Amino acid sequence: MSLTPQWLRHYQKAWLAGDLTAGLIVTVMLIPQSLAYALLAGLPPEVGLYASILPIVAYALLGSSMTLAVGPVAVASLMTASAIAPLAVAGTAEYAALAVQLSLISGAMLLAFGVMRLGFLAHFLSHPVISGFITGSAVVIAIGQLKHLLGVRVPSSSTWETLKGLVLALPQTNVATLALGLGSLIFLVVARRYLSGWLVRMGMPAKVAELLTKLAPMVAVIASIAVVALARLDLSAKVSVVGVVPQGLPHMELALPGLSTVGQLWLPALLIALVGFVESVSVAQSLALKRQQRIAPNKELLGLGAANIASALSGGYPVTGGFARSVVNFAAGANTPLAGVVSAALMALVIASMTGAFYYLPHAVLAATIIVAVVSLVDFDTLKEAWHYDRADALSLMATALGVIAMGVEVGILMGVALSLGVLVWRSSRPHMAVVGRVPGTEHFRNIERHSVETVPGLLALRVDESLFFANASALEDRVEDLIRADATVRRVVLVCSAVNQIDTTALGVLTELHASLAKRGVSLALAEVKGPVMDRLQHTALGRALQGRVFQSVHAAFTALRAA
Amino acid sequence: MSLTPQWLRHYQKAWLAGDLTAGLIVTVMLIPQSLAYALLAGLPPEVGLYASILPIVAYALLGSSMTLAVGPVAVASLMTASAIAPLAVAGTAEYAALAVQLSLISGAMLLAFGVMRLGFLAHFLSHPVISGFITGSAVVIAIGQLKHLLGVRVPSSSTWETLKGLVLALPQTNVATLALGLGSLIFLVVARRYLSGWLVRMGMPAKVAELLTKLAPMVAVIASIAVVALARLDLSAKVSVVGVVPQGLPHMELALPGLSTVGQLWLPALLIALVGFVESVSVAQSLALKRQQRIAPNKELLGLGAANIASALSGGYPVTGGFARSVVNFAAGANTPLAGVVSAALMALVIASMTGAFYYLPHAVLAATIIVAVVSLVDFDTLKEAWHYDRADALSLMATALGVIAMGVEVGILMGVALSLGVLVWRSSRPHMAVVGRVPGTEHFRNIERHSVETVPGLLALRVDESLFFANASALEDRVEDLIRADATVRRVVLVCSAVNQIDTTALGVLTELHASLAKRGVSLALAEVKGPVMDRLQHTALGRALQGRVFQSVHAAFTALRAA
Repeated sequence: MSLTPQWLRHYQKAWLAGDLTAGLIVTVMLIPQSLAYALLAGLPPEVGLYASILPIVAYALLGSSMTLAVGPVAVASLMTASAIAPLAVAGTAEYAALAVQLSLISGAMLLAFGVMRLGFLAHFLSHPVISGFITGSAVVIAIGQLKHLLGVRVPSSSTWETLKGLVLALPQTNVATLALGLGSLIFLVVARRYLSGWLVRMGMPAKVAELLTKLAPMVAVIASIAVVALARLDLSAKVSVVGVVPQGLPHMELALPGLSTVGQLWLPALLIALVGFVESVSVAQSLALKRQQRIAPNKELLGLGAANIASALSGGYPVTGGFARSVVNFAAGANTPLAGVVSAALMALVIASMTGAFYYLPHAVLAATIIVAVVSLVDFDTLKEAWHYDRADALSLMATALGVIAMGVEVGILMGVALSLGVLVWRSSRPHMAVVGRVPGTEHFRNIERHSVETVPGLLALRVDESLFFANASALEDRVEDLIRADATVRRVVLVCSAVNQIDTTALGVLTELHASLAKRGVSLALAEVKGPVMDRLQHTALGRALQGRVFQSVHAAFTALRAA
Repeated sequence: MSLTPQWLRHYQKAWLAGDLTAGLIVTVMLIPQSLAYALLAGLPPEVGLYASILPIVAYALLGSSMTLAVGPVAVASLMTASAIAPLAVAGTAEYAALAVQLSLISGAMLLAFGVMRLGFLAHFLSHPVISGFITGSAVVIAIGQLKHLLGVRVPSSSTWETLKGLVLALPQTNVATLALGLGSLIFLVVARRYLSGWLVRMGMPAKVAELLTKLAPMVAVIASIAVVALARLDLSAKVSVVGVVPQGLPHMELALPGLSTVGQLWLPALLIALVGFVESVSVAQSLALKRQQRIAPNKELLGLGAANIASALSGGYPVTGGFARSVVNFAAGANTPLAGVVSAALMALVIASMTGAFYYLPHAVLAATIIVAVVSLVDFDTLKEAWHYDRADALSLMATALGVIAMGVEVGILMGVALSLGVLVWRSSRPHMAVVGRVPGTEHFRNIERHSVETVPGLLALRVDESLFFANASALEDRVEDLIRADATVRRVVLVCSAVNQIDTTALGVLTELHASLAKRGVSLALAEVKGPVMDRLQHTALGRALQGRVFQSVHAAFTALRAA
């Protein structure tokens, strides 16, 4: 296996123009985002820039998506803040060092999962849980940014504390800050809603108009810097600004975490890894499908793992594939990860020479860009759909969102996962079972309550619509006992196993008991339509041997044989 | 609904003799057990006797088993000790008060589960996890009793500490204590193994011989009391004895726990409730089956909940249905819970008038009865069976047992539950899928790799052997994509849903995407053998509407229709 990625070995000249354009546009979009998300994570702004260089290159070497744009994202930034805030004071070197360690541990986990092909771990996060988690996080993030819009100081230990603090601090609102923040907010909302429509009506091609819209945050940044710098609002009106952003490329260094640090950070690191992976793969997959490309989840694990380790190596913090910037990258014509490499190079240039330009950038404007970005993450559609399709999923979603808002990101997502596993077991513990009969004139058997079918007296054919395992084995036993009690003429019971995909040890025990207890009462047990993999295991057990000759390929075969008997 | 239980309203005279005999025999068996298990729980011996009166009566009123014997049991006693030891010093009034609260909270939970019909919660505990838990607990209990056999003091913070302490304390062994303990142990083992055989050979009916064997612990208790009292071994040889056991019925009182106590005890209380419920129901069920009776799990929850609240009310600690004593109760001819009421009355008599008799009872003899009782709980058969049938179940079992031994009962069982849920999701995340074709001359379709079947060119029929949900939806998508990539002639894909019992929101999303992405490539998607409950939900969704006319009752119908098309 060559270390050079495939896209690079077979690079075609025709791809270059698209990759260069996309790299440039994404960089312009990334600059305000990187600064803002670093602030959201409780880190100095330059850390956001650091996290937007090496990780992109690392992903380009190992990842499988042609268009995914990796870097700091809103949700991972919030998770970083919530993981480190209890351990260190934001703004200190210790805090930044812990963010590096978090990224390192998270990256090492992703790499390990990739090597061990454990991508399935991400499947523990159902779509409703993820949707609830992101919606909840977006609400928490937006509320947390309001203090920057108002220019006040507010404690942020919990959402409730923050809200209370905001109300109490209202009288101290810094009017100039609020004006800048609200102005940017309105500009960004209007730009997002109407700008591309206006541009199109002015004769601009739709695609170009769409892309220009994405540059609105940069316009807000430049305009606000100009206003603050000219009026020296930082002095005259005490508008809080970013201030000195150290110039120069990040130092490359890496301290391995001690055992106690690993003990404190492994859970948030794992959650950041999984959430980041799920989000990233779903973005990558939806973009790949549009161009008939494919995403290899295990390669994604390697790519994201390498990206996070690269982020740690260069003083950054946890990164993952971002939705908005990947879409822009794709729309701007990115053909390969070279677009990302271009963007990384441009970003390095910015850090090496232009950080002075951000001195007058007001925090309120960064807060406005964050709010506009996360409000679009609030997802009521999934809730609405789930509510109509599957109430339990909708409840998992809401519980996760409320859990995140009321109790923080970690508790919220763990609650969501526990709830969705609980729902899974609960559902499986009450399996659908149907007594079946033959559809006249066919060899097909259906539910006697839903279809008009033929049955044979004394023969009970019960279809179990679920794998048999610890949570539902006794439900089957109860149902058979009930049916036999209800019809004393039953002499043969056929379990139709077309939907039984597994029989675990607990269920095997229950079936063995059921067989013995039926036999005592002169009722014989038979199986039909047992799947290959299930039969392979069953035949070597006591039950398998006891049932020899009474396992039929189809219900039809069972009916024919048992009717004759 | 009358409050008088059914067995009492329809009580028949013929049942009385059996109930009286069983009540008497169980009481004789219960006395040493109750004293010993209270000690195991870190409580004064009389607490064990208290827990053997009111709880039995409460269960008789609300439970559904005719023969279950409720009271202190080994595993719940160990769980009680492990829950309270970190909070209070064994032997203090505070410790005893916490045991009462634990019983109260556990009972309230059981009652609540019963009222809300949440019996399914117990299904989270698979058979291998329970088996591993009990085996691990038995090992921990047996090791913990060795210090009483040796007559030494040893720290018991962990199994490892205890073992180390035992080795270090060996030189301090109290020889008289060891002689009494080992003597009892050998007597009990020999009685259990050979006594009933000898008695039968001497002409005694097998059933009576079997029952007499169960009274061996009482014989050991009486004999050892006599030896110690006559030789005053408590003074001359410093043999540790039970000492003064307060005489008189327990005071009835109940202090509700404060919030902080609930916060400390809810998790162990929940685990004790669930483990106790599972054990109790499985004993009750296996006995009921022998007499064609039935157990109502929700009534069991109410019965056990009431028993634990009654235990708390009378100064006891958590109780549940015991295996050994229920079997003896059954074998001694108990016909109704009146046998338990008789035993409760006799036990009250003992407490009211004869506790002085236990003064000289050596701790070593109680330890011997505990060791003999728990060694029989060690269950290698389940491990052996699971190892041959289902490696993952066997690993869950071993992990739970080792977890209990190395890290304590709570961590052990939580690990087991997490592992069994993990195995469940992991298995479901890699569902078995088979491309199917028609068995010649039938309407039956089987795996093309296992059977010689007919297929139609351009038509791909894929059977998914699993419900579709968050953990496996993308695996289906990947498989379909792989199959289409492998055979470019495919124009129609039929998903055979005979084994799909549920489609959750996440999977619905994936199917909707798959349908759209296939359509773009000119491949149509159809479903066959969709189950009633699944179809009921599906038809109101966008996917359901898009698939109208392409959902077939059987694979045969789909083949016929699509071949013609």
